[in-house]
Amino acid sequence: MEKIVSAKNERVKKWSKLKTKKGRLNSNQYILESWHLVSEAINANQNVEVVLTTNKQYELHQNEIDAFDGEVIEITDDVSKVLGSTSTPQGIFGIVELPKEDHFDSLDMNGSWLLLDQIQDPGNIGTMVRTADAAGFDGVIFGEGTSSQFNPKVLRSMQGSQFHLKLLEGDLLDWIGKFKENDVPVYGTELNPQAVSYDQIEKQDAFALVMGNEGNGMQDKILDQTTKNLYIPIKGKAESLNVAIAAGIAMFHLKK
Amino acid sequence: MEKIVSAKNERVKKWSKLKTKKGRLNSNQYILESWHLVSEAINANQNVEVVLTTNKQYELHQNEIDAFDGEVIEITDDVSKVLGSTSTPQGIFGIVELPKEDHFDSLDMNGSWLLLDQIQDPGNIGTMVRTADAAGFDGVIFGEGTSSQFNPKVLRSMQGSQFHLKLLEGDLLDWIGKFKENDVPVYGTELNPQAVSYDQIEKQDAFALVMGNEGNGMQDKILDQTTKNLYIPIKGKAESLNVAIAAGIAMFHLKK
Repeated sequence: MEKIVSAKNERVKKWSKLKTKKGRLNSNQYILESWHLVSEAINANQNVEVVLTTNKQYELHQNEIDAFDGEVIEITDDVSKVLGSTSTPQGIFGIVELPKEDHFDSLDMNGSWLLLDQIQDPGNIGTMVRTADAAGFDGVIFGEGTSSQFNPKVLRSMQGSQFHLKLLEGDLLDWIGKFKENDVPVYGTELNPQAVSYDQIEKQDAFALVMGNEGNGMQDKILDQTTKNLYIPIKGKAESLNVAIAAGIAMFHLKK
Repeated sequence: MEKIVSAKNERVKKWSKLKTKKGRLNSNQYILESWHLVSEAINANQNVEVVLTTNKQYELHQNEIDAFDGEVIEITDDVSKVLGSTSTPQGIFGIVELPKEDHFDSLDMNGSWLLLDQIQDPGNIGTMVRTADAAGFDGVIFGEGTSSQFNPKVLRSMQGSQFHLKLLEGDLLDWIGKFKENDVPVYGTELNPQAVSYDQIEKQDAFALVMGNEGNGMQDKILDQTTKNLYIPIKGKAESLNVAIAAGIAMFHLKK
């Protein structure tokens, strides 16, 4: 097995750049961290080109890594620290080809979709994707201004749910138009009670739910285009709900 | 106004220790960070003994700080960094006397309570307290093994909800016994579907809901003592829900 010991190695420098959008576009690759995610990617037939592993991690997952038919390279803890996005990286990474965007087909119009309008926090995004998966949603659409699905912190907090449902990107106004043309209701969410309480809406299969920015909520131009806007009544003195909590409550209530 | 410029000042060393349990018990104080929390504490009649502020923060909140009748001390950015628990602290702190524990009275038996069984992550704990506040719960009981309500990260993520509802600590088995003696149902939560689906339970006012550890769920000895154990059906391929998301879904469903 090839071994890379220096954090200054040219390939390490290139892989490290995959943590940025520019680096991902230049290489047409992204970097996945942890054996859980790398193995989920392999099992989900993602194009994992290289597995990078410390000796310690190799010993823990030797059978599975030996069965992998791409390139496997041993790395040191120093290299691992450069590539990782936490202070104590696990020591195993996958270099993965950026997938072609998931295809939205006509059957998907019968499904449930979560739309993210300018959500900033990677942890919130990942948790919402994971919750959408658990609620049986068909996919999540990342609107412009929402952190990338290939951001290392987003990747980590999706915990593998990225391989269970469709992830799309695009202009939410275009998507909302598409849903409405097909008589699929699009529910916006507001921070204040000028809207309909979420629990007044019946459970259903085909709908889109839009969640807005942590501080500012949804953009007005998007709120204007929805079928109906919902709010979650606050009974105590809290100023607001965390956006991922609100999304969880709404998704589990709405989804049949 | 007194000014402390050195991070090696004896009082700074003492305040910095308030970030640990031992330091809090030794001084009978805790440290609150950010003007939002310090002002909420003052307004909630907590015994804020000292306000520490950088000059920049003083200028932003001069009227309110001048109206504060305790000690006010100017600190430098270096001192702020030592006292803060983020990489870029806002620069304003309150040194607060540890409150007497909130009193649970007989009327509280008619209310809704969230019980935390060995919850580790400060962000999860804070988010659950904030969500309990928003759902109109009466209080949260921190079981043994759950991170402290005075941990700086827990304090921060409660976002002021700690001043809106009662926070208690103690042996959950004792609390569960008390609720059951008063015919108040205690709902446990399980990670797997051997239990009753949460949406089979009617909305109600008087109940306790127990959430368990992020990785291991509730302790068996506590699950054994509940009135009923609930689960949230997972429809997709996600392995589990984040505990704070699960708590949010259950609390908003159960609370009348």
